Amino acid sequence: MALVNEHFLKLPDSYLFSDIAKKINTFKVTHPKDKVISLGIGDVTRPLPKAVIEAMHKAVDEMAVRDTFRGYGPEQGYSFLIDAVIKNDFVPKGIHFEPGEIFINDGAKSDTGNIGDILRHDNSIGVTDPIYPVYIDSNVMCGRAGTLENGKWSNVTYIPCRSENGFIPEIPENRIDILYLCYPNNPTGTALSKQELKKWVNYALSNDTLILFDAAYEAYIQDSDVPHSIYEIKGAKKCAIEFRSFSKTAGFTGVRCGYTVVPKEVSAATLTGERIPLNRLWNRRQCTKFNGTSYITQRAAEAVYSAEGQMQVKEIIQYYMTNARIMKTGLSETGLEVYGGENAPYLWVKAPDGLSSWKFFERMLYEANVVCTPGVGFGPSGEGYARLTAFGDRDDCMEAMFRLKKWLR
Amino acid sequence: MALVNEHFLKLPDSYLFSDIAKKINTFKVTHPKDKVISLGIGDVTRPLPKAVIEAMHKAVDEMAVRDTFRGYGPEQGYSFLIDAVIKNDFVPKGIHFEPGEIFINDGAKSDTGNIGDILRHDNSIGVTDPIYPVYIDSNVMCGRAGTLENGKWSNVTYIPCRSENGFIPEIPENRIDILYLCYPNNPTGTALSKQELKKWVNYALSNDTLILFDAAYEAYIQDSDVPHSIYEIKGAKKCAIEFRSFSKTAGFTGVRCGYTVVPKEVSAATLTGERIPLNRLWNRRQCTKFNGTSYITQRAAEAVYSAEGQMQVKEIIQYYMTNARIMKTGLSETGLEVYGGENAPYLWVKAPDGLSSWKFFERMLYEANVVCTPGVGFGPSGEGYARLTAFGDRDDCMEAMFRLKKWLR
Repeated sequence: MALVNEHFLKLPDSYLFSDIAKKINTFKVTHPKDKVISLGIGDVTRPLPKAVIEAMHKAVDEMAVRDTFRGYGPEQGYSFLIDAVIKNDFVPKGIHFEPGEIFINDGAKSDTGNIGDILRHDNSIGVTDPIYPVYIDSNVMCGRAGTLENGKWSNVTYIPCRSENGFIPEIPENRIDILYLCYPNNPTGTALSKQELKKWVNYALSNDTLILFDAAYEAYIQDSDVPHSIYEIKGAKKCAIEFRSFSKTAGFTGVRCGYTVVPKEVSAATLTGERIPLNRLWNRRQCTKFNGTSYITQRAAEAVYSAEGQMQVKEIIQYYMTNARIMKTGLSETGLEVYGGENAPYLWVKAPDGLSSWKFFERMLYEANVVCTPGVGFGPSGEGYARLTAFGDRDDCMEAMFRLKKWLR
Repeated sequence: MALVNEHFLKLPDSYLFSDIAKKINTFKVTHPKDKVISLGIGDVTRPLPKAVIEAMHKAVDEMAVRDTFRGYGPEQGYSFLIDAVIKNDFVPKGIHFEPGEIFINDGAKSDTGNIGDILRHDNSIGVTDPIYPVYIDSNVMCGRAGTLENGKWSNVTYIPCRSENGFIPEIPENRIDILYLCYPNNPTGTALSKQELKKWVNYALSNDTLILFDAAYEAYIQDSDVPHSIYEIKGAKKCAIEFRSFSKTAGFTGVRCGYTVVPKEVSAATLTGERIPLNRLWNRRQCTKFNGTSYITQRAAEAVYSAEGQMQVKEIIQYYMTNARIMKTGLSETGLEVYGGENAPYLWVKAPDGLSSWKFFERMLYEANVVCTPGVGFGPSGEGYARLTAFGDRDDCMEAMFRLKKWLR
């Protein structure tokens, strides 16, 4: 008799975004004349850069001709892209990797979820809270998160990030085997300085903790003392795997490409204490359960690193970050406490008068016709907050700020 | 202390294709003048159909414009492709699915590997032998395959397919929880008639076995009594998940697209005997650890179903199947026992004089300058056989047959 993986049954059905959609629909039905502005989505809206479009057309044409057609590529990705990644994302920062340490993928979500395959089912987990739900859900699915006890998983350490501590996670007393860090952070939009990140690398080195570092938003960093890669910190190659994505950097959310860095130095232990390089295991995992990313997509990603590509990508990011500035100023003027938005496309707003995330969401929708994402959807410490994103249109951002000011005046 | 998943350490390093590459290189170095023809690769060589190329150019252009740009798509795939799949691959055979039963992916390899996520770690496994190594390796990685004992995994039932039984797997005495079937078969190139496949569906229904049916080569079927989908067999929706791929159908090995069918009826049990629909679990798995396939790729796949696309795809398949016929005739004329090649692009050749797979490979390379794949690389029952593929150029196929005839005369 085939048996299911019962860990899946522990997962509460995730209703956050469908609940939001339902509430918006209800509003639209009952208020057909009112135009709703959504600042809730975490998806980009600007079209792909010209250089990327040209590269894809060229690659498509190659696939039409016998001599330039490409079938199966390397599971780890084509060297033309891996070399571009190393040369552009790391060498300028004095960080050196061999090609074998970079794994091209179809987006960071796949690898942040799949990386658990190479790790033991009973490692303890640590996450900053609030956080991207995939980190926890993917661990629930393999039993690693333990059991749900009043809103928290028994084998997960939640490291609160709230206004009280300036959203800077404090080193926990207990040991953690696997720690997820996402900086610049989704959802709070806050960043960690080199000094702060160094504390975590040192914690990992002295506790033999594996850091899974999600740097999907590094392209939005403006401050010079905010590290773009965890490998800017000495010793990180021994304790960290880094996830990068072209989704928010170059508008690839619908194109699907990213990469994972698994340094040759990073290792984990067997029960007998033997050290095993994780690079070898991840390579074997990818060769067995993944068949590489589309050749056309990899050429698109390569074009992001061209001179034109870099210019065009920076323009798009500046567009979103200008939105973020407009929103931050506007929200401050309403008297709301607002965080983030300086090194990330997300703003994290504290609900006034101790309102819950959902109450704040509903008031904003019904009284200002603006959509946010209730912070509690990202974890217990998100209660009482809401996330606004800067990925929308300029005019919508400005109109939304106008409405919020009027609403809260 | 972070611990590794020690099941990975049980995996013997897979050397098959790198060993083959090394041996070919050695030959080329020592025989610089001799031109080697490779009939070993399992990858397509014809360029993409015109309809697919046009669809991709159009989709790329959409991504360049604000109003037609697409960001995140549904994790399950776009409805335009799901509808085309249902309408073209199933309705004509009288098989009906809801959109929610089809999951678009980035290729069959990912899902045949990842499907294990939703199944318990100690289900027993059954495979026909020889077989596509991913089925077994992905189960070794999560501990489901057990331990390796003289070339076989302790929790895996190997169902031998050899000339002695006409490559028709016999129903095993023991119960199997999860059974992998790949028909038309890689590597043997043989197919199962409706009658034969029905036996397995009935076995699954009476033993509560889950069948994982890999139909990646269905487009190569020529005989009318060979089912293209396991759902052509009554009752299969209750016990089978089917994997389809555009890789061999439309030359997508470098484009990456396929789909998985998880009927609403198919379920597995909890330890207490409760039935859980696998569709729900797989949907949750995909929403958590996958972010959909490239929009451009999905438009490419949609174009495969257009009138022009269908015509162009059939032409390519006929090209490969003509290669297969030429090879089958040629090999028979050499006096070798040859199987498959009638409903699949693979030919399975028995080594003469009881030669081992590797000896046969080396003789063919050194004495005829033709490359095959040693059958033993696909499992114990592959020993004494070699796989030849019909994916090469027409001229190479004919030249290779000429050489083999001369060699074995």
